[in-house]
Amino acid sequence: MIIVGELINSTRKAIAQAIEQKDAAYLQDLARRQAEAGADFIDVNTASSGDEIGNMIWLVDLIQEVVDVPLCIDSPNPLALEAGLARCRKKPMVNSISAETERWEHVLPLIQKYEAKVVALCMDNSGMPETIEDRLRVARTLVNGLTGAGVAPEDIYLDPLVKPLGVNHEAGMEIIRSTQALKQNYSKSHVISGLSNVSFGLPERRLLNRVFMVMSMAVGMDSFILDPLDQTLMSLASAAKALGGQDEYCLDYISGVRAGRIKA
Amino acid sequence: MIIVGELINSTRKAIAQAIEQKDAAYLQDLARRQAEAGADFIDVNTASSGDEIGNMIWLVDLIQEVVDVPLCIDSPNPLALEAGLARCRKKPMVNSISAETERWEHVLPLIQKYEAKVVALCMDNSGMPETIEDRLRVARTLVNGLTGAGVAPEDIYLDPLVKPLGVNHEAGMEIIRSTQALKQNYSKSHVISGLSNVSFGLPERRLLNRVFMVMSMAVGMDSFILDPLDQTLMSLASAAKALGGQDEYCLDYISGVRAGRIKA
Repeated sequence: MIIVGELINSTRKAIAQAIEQKDAAYLQDLARRQAEAGADFIDVNTASSGDEIGNMIWLVDLIQEVVDVPLCIDSPNPLALEAGLARCRKKPMVNSISAETERWEHVLPLIQKYEAKVVALCMDNSGMPETIEDRLRVARTLVNGLTGAGVAPEDIYLDPLVKPLGVNHEAGMEIIRSTQALKQNYSKSHVISGLSNVSFGLPERRLLNRVFMVMSMAVGMDSFILDPLDQTLMSLASAAKALGGQDEYCLDYISGVRAGRIKA
Repeated sequence: MIIVGELINSTRKAIAQAIEQKDAAYLQDLARRQAEAGADFIDVNTASSGDEIGNMIWLVDLIQEVVDVPLCIDSPNPLALEAGLARCRKKPMVNSISAETERWEHVLPLIQKYEAKVVALCMDNSGMPETIEDRLRVARTLVNGLTGAGVAPEDIYLDPLVKPLGVNHEAGMEIIRSTQALKQNYSKSHVISGLSNVSFGLPERRLLNRVFMVMSMAVGMDSFILDPLDQTLMSLASAAKALGGQDEYCLDYISGVRAGRIKA
């Protein structure tokens, strides 16, 4: 299981403000705590701050002063992606590419240049996927295109693009089935998702987000963009890892319980 | 999703004692609360009380005074099963039959006579199943035998028999994969499980039990023998039902949250 810590994202007001005010201590603390809580990557997004590119460079340097985990450089703007990637000391992740022509053409060269891992959104010029078949069709384009360009299958994180359950009550099962099909077809690649879209517009969103994570882990989703400081979520993830056969002798689970990190 | 309320089971000390002391108020309250919390069946087990058969008759009558939901008559003793079934006013469930010769021969006639639903354990004379293939082989024997004897496929609840994760870290995935295969082969029948075996010997058992329920729901397990008074468990079940596409417009989920029954 691979966890991308989602908290340093300027679409969150507190983060945008901390970036504007150059509040290094706050942002470094957030990076450190996510790493300590088990994040494998720290997402860095400055898209909703004033000087996106300048802020990206500052923030990437800042975070790398205090954590050793690699970064996930997150922006819709290829120039900001490149600015962040150029400063990364460890093999980074790019968030994200898609099969949309413009995005593909701008982001692919960056992935190649920086030998980055990449979140690949299952959407193309026809827009958001409607069906499982849409997702599989776009995933084929993405995997073939990326591996053809020299990207290792292990470096590809396919995102099937979760839609709100409140709009379509089949939205959860679409992702469950898509995930299983993606893992069957691309066993060396990863399937990744954020957790919050599925619950949009519904009450007790955290409950739905947590259950969605656990259900999708049962069918092979192995990577998540989430809040690693949510102890309940991380406890569920540890239990799901153990039940999913990814924790030999349940050693991580048992030591996590003993250390007080994992709680019912 | 079908819930068998597990609490009135004499293997629990408090229940054995209440049965011995003929504490009708306590036992009726437990039946009522389980039904109110959403149990579709109330399990009744007197096997660990003194006069199993006499107690079964007394308890079945007692519970039916206060709840309308059908009962799940639970005993290793065919005579106790028959005593309970004979008193049931609604189509009952039998817990359980297996493909072991003796059990099969004693329990099948009861299922036929009382037109009962039945929990069918995936084990035969060779003992507990070791592999997914074992479970599928025994399930075939059970489904063919039961339907051949006139039992409707909808009345069969296949139990793949969960083993402790602490003994074999693949035990969880074996059940995930078995469940999916059972639903593919016997789509009209149900797959059922208790929740506590999987966590035997491990710490924070409730966490593992809950996560096991959610993961197995993702692949088609549709029936559980559980404690319906565990609000956290029931909240997770409601969220998993919604995410599993079994709650149109998420109406049950939304109304459960509004009523305070469902909480993150």
